[in-house]
Amino acid sequence: MNRPRFRCISDTCGKEFSIDEKLFRCSACSDLLDIAYAFDDLDPGDLRRVFRSRRGSVEPLDGSGVWRYRELLPFASGDERWIVTMGEGNNPVVDARQSARYVGLKNLRVKHLGWNPSGSFKDYGMTVAISQARKLGSRVVCCASTGNTSASMAAYCARTEDVRAVVFIPEGQIAYGKLSQTLDYGAQTIQVRGDFDAAMELVQDLSNTTDLYLMNSINPFRLEGQKTVMIDLFDQLDWKVPDRIVVPGGNLGNSSSYGKALMELKRLGFIEKVPRLTVIQASGANPLYRTLVSSSRELVPVDNAWTLASAIKIGRPISWKKAVRALNFSDGWCDEVSEQEIADAKAILGRDGIGCEPASATTVAGLKKLIEGDRKNVRIDAEEDV
Amino acid sequence: MNRPRFRCISDTCGKEFSIDEKLFRCSACSDLLDIAYAFDDLDPGDLRRVFRSRRGSVEPLDGSGVWRYRELLPFASGDERWIVTMGEGNNPVVDARQSARYVGLKNLRVKHLGWNPSGSFKDYGMTVAISQARKLGSRVVCCASTGNTSASMAAYCARTEDVRAVVFIPEGQIAYGKLSQTLDYGAQTIQVRGDFDAAMELVQDLSNTTDLYLMNSINPFRLEGQKTVMIDLFDQLDWKVPDRIVVPGGNLGNSSSYGKALMELKRLGFIEKVPRLTVIQASGANPLYRTLVSSSRELVPVDNAWTLASAIKIGRPISWKKAVRALNFSDGWCDEVSEQEIADAKAILGRDGIGCEPASATTVAGLKKLIEGDRKNVRIDAEEDV
Repeated sequence: MNRPRFRCISDTCGKEFSIDEKLFRCSACSDLLDIAYAFDDLDPGDLRRVFRSRRGSVEPLDGSGVWRYRELLPFASGDERWIVTMGEGNNPVVDARQSARYVGLKNLRVKHLGWNPSGSFKDYGMTVAISQARKLGSRVVCCASTGNTSASMAAYCARTEDVRAVVFIPEGQIAYGKLSQTLDYGAQTIQVRGDFDAAMELVQDLSNTTDLYLMNSINPFRLEGQKTVMIDLFDQLDWKVPDRIVVPGGNLGNSSSYGKALMELKRLGFIEKVPRLTVIQASGANPLYRTLVSSSRELVPVDNAWTLASAIKIGRPISWKKAVRALNFSDGWCDEVSEQEIADAKAILGRDGIGCEPASATTVAGLKKLIEGDRKNVRIDAEEDV
Repeated sequence: MNRPRFRCISDTCGKEFSIDEKLFRCSACSDLLDIAYAFDDLDPGDLRRVFRSRRGSVEPLDGSGVWRYRELLPFASGDERWIVTMGEGNNPVVDARQSARYVGLKNLRVKHLGWNPSGSFKDYGMTVAISQARKLGSRVVCCASTGNTSASMAAYCARTEDVRAVVFIPEGQIAYGKLSQTLDYGAQTIQVRGDFDAAMELVQDLSNTTDLYLMNSINPFRLEGQKTVMIDLFDQLDWKVPDRIVVPGGNLGNSSSYGKALMELKRLGFIEKVPRLTVIQASGANPLYRTLVSSSRELVPVDNAWTLASAIKIGRPISWKKAVRALNFSDGWCDEVSEQEIADAKAILGRDGIGCEPASATTVAGLKKLIEGDRKNVRIDAEEDV
């Protein structure tokens, strides 16, 4: 296989760079970067069997719900010694019967990504990004965070014993449980006068001008790890792909990475049908929704974004172009829901025995809205909410 | 196989009862009950292979880290329709290098039971107890709890849709995060004027005089589920059994169930060597330690038990006799650690990227004490801390 490369996602640029550079945006046009693979000789049938058989292995890389799928993350091939894994992933898919009734569906299944080492889906991406940080020789990594990213980054750094974590927190805008975790794992935390978007801008500047390595989801290696959520899900479903996959939309790393997974899985012949990716935002922090309904070619940002769902209280989502690409590719959808709709949906998910953040409950709220709006037009059998 | 039976654990009584009765203590002598099996035709080699192969299955019972080992929980055989599972268990075993150095060991591995549907090890036992509750036709289940038990019971009840959960909370003595979870999952909560031991006495009375089904660990079905922590651990270690297994000691359900697992696995030929079970208590809530050091044949309770490790702040542990049996069988050990030792150990575990309750950190604190006290006498290669 040709060496994996960074590739600028801009149609008009598409420039490529070595992944051994410390790079977070295209040096030519400043657009976002993908990790691009040639993937020349993969047999989907064989690999599906390999993936499945690794579930029964006691090797740490096989036991990880991320590295089990390493043939689809081939940038790390030969560099396994840098990998830091805590057995992340492996989150079961469970029925959500009360939520199904609530939204008006017969079948609704939830892949709960909270049952992870640091308590959130961020661990899927962090195990990959920290491994790349080590490979590049980074000694200090950083992120801007309202909670989950900081806890996850701090946990993985702790396990390296030689990479330090520095977290930039929007003033007073971090979930306290997450802050305690971050401190428990030994990260240095710096409070920034400003909101998440301001903290994000600051860490991008710092990572460009200093040795700090950036661990937010603008880092394409984070998204490579998160890609495996889709691969793991389809494996769990015996590769019977659902009609629709519903995710919350904040900084849009999830939708971006799931979109990349769908594109690669389709291209490689792992799946025929592409599930429709559906992104739900809080109406107080709905830049992607605003961008799409106004058919704008530039992001329509939200100043002073606000929602109780603090994990998605983001007005300038860094990965918005990749999210748009994912929705285009999968014939997807984006909608917004109110604070009341989020709170109601969270209560219903609780009644299914599924404890989640308000941000995650946007999915059930959005699905209800989607089905009520389109009852006569849309037939939906199975949904996935992550 | 003969039908599984309740059997009184008293050597002088040993009376048996049908497991179709709603029973929590021996009707003859009031002692604790085991679920006793005949296990007449199990082949350990075959079953090890079956267990391993189920890791690669997408069937819900195979995916559960509890029900995967159902041949060793044969009371449920033929009654699978009552089972409520959320894919619990499956917690990885990770190295804890900084903790190892801290306690003075070369190898220390941690099986972190927090990465579970309701966030604690209680889910291992709850999936079993709720299934038995349903089989018996119970409509309302109850427990006394300082946090983890209530959250777990409430989550599993929510998934039944036909069994209601009632939680009795010691006045002001529940962890608030756990209380929020319990309410989120729709349980009714009742605050009791008194501590955990008072609440425990109350729910025992209620379950004897009303239709309420008791879900605390005096319920032997809870311990059957928790048994699988050991089976899963040994499977993960390719049946290379560690020298020592260290657990926190509160109500002593863990040590009791792990002890039963060790007895059964040894008897059935799954293991030759029996790891030494080591129970660590907080010095302000150390009834088992007091009982053992005074060689008392009756429990030496602790009135007004107190420790910051709220999950083990228990002065009259209900399963103490089973814990003593487990320590005797495994040539085990019990010790106490101070609040400062617990806090220090928790900080070190955090530096390993392992977030845990103070109660769980007693294990590392106890291990340090054990090794420092016995450096010349004890050789310990690998430890498990759950």
